Amino acid sequence: MAIQNGVRVLARRAIGASALLCTMAGAQSLGDVRPSPEPLVLKQQGSFFVGGRQMFSNAAGWDLIGLLGQFSSGDVTVDQMYVQFQIPQQHRRHVPIVFVHGCCLSSKTWETTPDGRMGWYEYFTRRGFPTYLGEQSGRARSGFNGTIYNDVKEGLQPLTAQPPVLLGTAQFAWSVFRFGPSFGAVWPDEQFPMDHVGQLYKQVIPDMILTEVPSLTAEFVNPLTNNPTVANMASLARDLNGAILVGHSQSSVFPTQAVLKGLPGIRGIIQLETGCFANLTPDEVATMTKVPMLVVVGDHFAAPQPTPDCVTEMTEINAAGGDMSFIALPSAGLHGNSHMFMQDRNNLRVADVIIKWIDEHVADAAEQNDE
Amino acid sequence: MAIQNGVRVLARRAIGASALLCTMAGAQSLGDVRPSPEPLVLKQQGSFFVGGRQMFSNAAGWDLIGLLGQFSSGDVTVDQMYVQFQIPQQHRRHVPIVFVHGCCLSSKTWETTPDGRMGWYEYFTRRGFPTYLGEQSGRARSGFNGTIYNDVKEGLQPLTAQPPVLLGTAQFAWSVFRFGPSFGAVWPDEQFPMDHVGQLYKQVIPDMILTEVPSLTAEFVNPLTNNPTVANMASLARDLNGAILVGHSQSSVFPTQAVLKGLPGIRGIIQLETGCFANLTPDEVATMTKVPMLVVVGDHFAAPQPTPDCVTEMTEINAAGGDMSFIALPSAGLHGNSHMFMQDRNNLRVADVIIKWIDEHVADAAEQNDE
Repeated sequence: MAIQNGVRVLARRAIGASALLCTMAGAQSLGDVRPSPEPLVLKQQGSFFVGGRQMFSNAAGWDLIGLLGQFSSGDVTVDQMYVQFQIPQQHRRHVPIVFVHGCCLSSKTWETTPDGRMGWYEYFTRRGFPTYLGEQSGRARSGFNGTIYNDVKEGLQPLTAQPPVLLGTAQFAWSVFRFGPSFGAVWPDEQFPMDHVGQLYKQVIPDMILTEVPSLTAEFVNPLTNNPTVANMASLARDLNGAILVGHSQSSVFPTQAVLKGLPGIRGIIQLETGCFANLTPDEVATMTKVPMLVVVGDHFAAPQPTPDCVTEMTEINAAGGDMSFIALPSAGLHGNSHMFMQDRNNLRVADVIIKWIDEHVADAAEQNDE
Repeated sequence: MAIQNGVRVLARRAIGASALLCTMAGAQSLGDVRPSPEPLVLKQQGSFFVGGRQMFSNAAGWDLIGLLGQFSSGDVTVDQMYVQFQIPQQHRRHVPIVFVHGCCLSSKTWETTPDGRMGWYEYFTRRGFPTYLGEQSGRARSGFNGTIYNDVKEGLQPLTAQPPVLLGTAQFAWSVFRFGPSFGAVWPDEQFPMDHVGQLYKQVIPDMILTEVPSLTAEFVNPLTNNPTVANMASLARDLNGAILVGHSQSSVFPTQAVLKGLPGIRGIIQLETGCFANLTPDEVATMTKVPMLVVVGDHFAAPQPTPDCVTEMTEINAAGGDMSFIALPSAGLHGNSHMFMQDRNNLRVADVIIKWIDEHVADAAEQNDE
């Protein structure tokens, strides 16, 4: 890991002596995991799927390896969303919260941080929320629609039909996640645990979203979508009889897109970096006024925050009687936060900012049941 | 889901009236999840990675979609293994146990069953084991080595170099998982919750193991391997300072292959359906005598159990002073178990058979620390 070590040297120079405290453990990810301060008492834990459909696959791949060739075609399930959850023993007050990760990542995003601290999955549970992690259709345990790759290999489809596999490189992460001004250089006040950035790189996995949607860039600008993850998030909120939906980065647009699906049950939406639409129709704006909405961004953006798109959307929704808030973390007194602030050193303080907004803007479970 | 409904009708006919109790909930996976009998008290929970290496990718895919093209090459991490874990508050006695799933599946295998009952992840935790789920490199949250697909798409590699994507169809699952004598027909005493088989199909995801090993079939017959998951399992047992390694189906060979890596820390191995090698060298047999070993199989095999390969291996290891056991569940009084017996209706009784073997054959944590 010569590159990683080089990065570490640069990182140390930039962020100073405090990083040295942890560098000994850098190669030992299990050994980094820090003990819990007190037991976690769960009323329930588990996992299940939302959505999914069966389709016929004419190229399941087995004939290509000379094994079980009789199963080279048949029915496969696609578009499902894997969901893991835990419900704290004490949870009278809170509406369930559903987190969905961003590009090239999985629900690992919300678990133990790269340097072994408590992630938001456990923290929100400890703060009393029934907490759900939805994995995007096209990623990790939700699988992806893989037939096309075998179709191309077998010459049944042209190469042009093969969806690109999106790989988040270390250089991509450094830039998009805002670790510093250039690869290898770290912002002086960077909150991401850069001495363990190699552990983050292990979380970055091939993104197969282009087996689920025709264009990634179109998803960012179209409030309406056929992305199955969005439909699955809306279904989950309905099935839970009320939930807050949270998206991040690639999925930051999903909560708004889910509200526009028109299903009941979405009690609030939280969009992390960032997901604003400046092109909502008046009807869509009216729909958005029915759900309290928060957008949160970190530090070190090149452009002023909120962006013009976010200002436009917020102005429109609030003028129509809605409740849309925007929090740039520096304005809340938190500086140096990266795009991955759920893993930053001050990640629990960032969570507290969000929980405060929930407390002030989202009806709690008791109120909800009175409706 | 016409096919699935058709299957359900056939399943009902074959397995009788008991299945009717659950069919109403068949379409509602969240609603199927059954409440826990009592709180689960965890000393700790979390996740981390084992292994992984950085490699240069010349085709990260971004130029193919006209977005972030400057990141179309760079350093990506491959071969890592994602591990989730939970440690019960009361766990004085037991050695940690590590479960690794089989073909076309993820660690979901060990969680909530398709019909919403407790899976082995929670059950082993409740029985006092620090419990770890390792996800195979090349699957789900461990990611896979995706560059080759973009290389082929860009014409940098020939189509022949593109690894097949292995898709487990419903027909594949019905046969390989032994639900019945032919697709749509269920064994009269089948233990798999066939009224929720559609939920199992959602767990079946594209298997990218051929981005990790050159040949799947070769893995089943070669005791030595370069499969990164095997090395990662051995490393994990060492880092845990002692663990039992469990494999299933595709990964049933992994525990033996991990022992042959020669690292310390493997206190016992459990191979579920089945992983026997009849081609061990005398040195390899000698190595295998140092670790107690259990092979477990279910019901409804066409061939008598144990197979000749298992008989050969067991005879060799035990003649050399080792401790290899073979349990066919029918011989333990459990009938009708499928290949997926960790999800069968009697899954906790199957777990109890395994825990009994552990109690009798594997030194517990207290003894281990005395060594």
